[in-house]
Amino acid sequence: MTKGAGEFDFIARFFRPLAGPEACALRNDAAIISPNGHEDIILSTDTLVEGVHFLSNDPPETVGRKLLRVNLSDCAAMGATPYGYLLNISRPASLGEDWFSAFAKGLGEDQSFYGLSLFGGDTTSTRGPLVMTLTILGRVPKGEALHRNNAQNGDELWVTGTIGDAALGLKALTGQLTDPDGFLTERYRLPRPRLGIPLFGIVTAALDVSDGLVQDAGHIAEESGVSIIIEAEKVPRSPQARQLGNAYLSDCLSGGDDYELLLTCPPAQRGRLLEAARQHDIPITRIGHVEAGEGKVTVLDVDGAPFPLLKAGWRHF
Amino acid sequence: MTKGAGEFDFIARFFRPLAGPEACALRNDAAIISPNGHEDIILSTDTLVEGVHFLSNDPPETVGRKLLRVNLSDCAAMGATPYGYLLNISRPASLGEDWFSAFAKGLGEDQSFYGLSLFGGDTTSTRGPLVMTLTILGRVPKGEALHRNNAQNGDELWVTGTIGDAALGLKALTGQLTDPDGFLTERYRLPRPRLGIPLFGIVTAALDVSDGLVQDAGHIAEESGVSIIIEAEKVPRSPQARQLGNAYLSDCLSGGDDYELLLTCPPAQRGRLLEAARQHDIPITRIGHVEAGEGKVTVLDVDGAPFPLLKAGWRHF
Repeated sequence: MTKGAGEFDFIARFFRPLAGPEACALRNDAAIISPNGHEDIILSTDTLVEGVHFLSNDPPETVGRKLLRVNLSDCAAMGATPYGYLLNISRPASLGEDWFSAFAKGLGEDQSFYGLSLFGGDTTSTRGPLVMTLTILGRVPKGEALHRNNAQNGDELWVTGTIGDAALGLKALTGQLTDPDGFLTERYRLPRPRLGIPLFGIVTAALDVSDGLVQDAGHIAEESGVSIIIEAEKVPRSPQARQLGNAYLSDCLSGGDDYELLLTCPPAQRGRLLEAARQHDIPITRIGHVEAGEGKVTVLDVDGAPFPLLKAGWRHF
Repeated sequence: MTKGAGEFDFIARFFRPLAGPEACALRNDAAIISPNGHEDIILSTDTLVEGVHFLSNDPPETVGRKLLRVNLSDCAAMGATPYGYLLNISRPASLGEDWFSAFAKGLGEDQSFYGLSLFGGDTTSTRGPLVMTLTILGRVPKGEALHRNNAQNGDELWVTGTIGDAALGLKALTGQLTDPDGFLTERYRLPRPRLGIPLFGIVTAALDVSDGLVQDAGHIAEESGVSIIIEAEKVPRSPQARQLGNAYLSDCLSGGDDYELLLTCPPAQRGRLLEAARQHDIPITRIGHVEAGEGKVTVLDVDGAPFPLLKAGWRHF
């Protein structure tokens, strides 16, 4: 795509330092990767739009890191090891060098931590809000990628970490509640992708909770052709989320942006699942089960009655 | 990334019909490809912004096809065979179903013609202009990707097709000149990626002319550490471009969006180059040569004097 001289400078200054050898120093028409014959490559891509997926006053460091981590979470959900990424930026004239310098710094720190590098991308101008697309590549041994469509009647439903913090963090950032220690805000701004847990051969279905627990459970139910029962009071919440009281439980169940893993696992594999999570020091909680059915998700309260949900899934703010 | 129900409908309606098996029906967190050990994968990505890279009143069919073809051209420049693509769309509420229906129709026709399919993507809303990112994957036998950085002193400089039509087409679309038979406009809207010419082992450097002939020659010169001489009157122009007169020659030399291949070739390989182009029925013209140097491009007129260029490279309108 056509570029002005300013774009080459912009790329060279902020993004060449992030480039891996596959990027050909960001000077080629394309990146080149050289897979061996023993692995599959997974590809996932997400776009963040200023004012839709992040707030204009979010710190640029965390915007870059969130963009990367959201995609790393997709790698985690597929059981893949991150490899590299492409980055496309459409930038408004209002965002200056300082913003992108901090953005690239955050990205650089995270790519070092997670062990991947920049393979390529594109930068353009726009008269609208900042739009960024990150496309991640991961590797997985051939045939061992995790899917969403194999949950079985009788499986247990498990989730990592705690659910709802990010949705509450967004409420805090938009002035709808207080977040005294900043924990909820941090969870919204910096997801923790649950990479590295060896789940192949243990779980029957996996995804990362991005749309909201109930809506994402619905994806597994639909793709697998089963029904899923969630017991509301078993859904793990952080102390900060619990402190807000059960009035916010519905927000936790349907709020998005958690990036925890939602897994279905046959009871016979429970021991292996717990051991795999323990070895990676990742908390994991059983929150329901899978029944025969046709794509429905039912949330039950502590008495076994239907739990009233305010909304089925997260909406963009 | 978080999605509302409307986005799932949107994806299912317009884009699931374009999906290949690697896309897992666009229902997974990621696409999965399974390369053999004998090929490299090339990855190229381009973003188009409404009002920057295409005009708001451009027909949606051609916008989709141009987005794909611009990336196919990157495949051609690397000597790769297209494989599949990811598509990210940030859409304003003002663009309705009709627009995307026509857009997807254009994409679908081109992907059938060029033999590739949709692997995945993301759709989001935006309050700004339409922004679309297309990321293409191509395959090339291991180690046989073409590069830009190996042009040698003594090589000849060759270009496919005709140069400048797209830049003149943009001038026609913006009312700066007339285009009686619509040829120039068509060249701007629908690039013809020069896929399939077997150039490995024949050319020393290759790229596709997207920024403008002179600026792109500069990329080869810089990356290869050579100087490039272009003879202005040898640069092939279409009858329609010639008809406008030499007043527009500078526009042709520095205008972007041609998506022809610019190649450097040792004189000893000239016969093979001509034969490869002939077999694919692609016109090719020698327009200059490579000298020892440090990244400079010189354009000469018919008398061997420096040709005056209005600008070094294409700017976004």
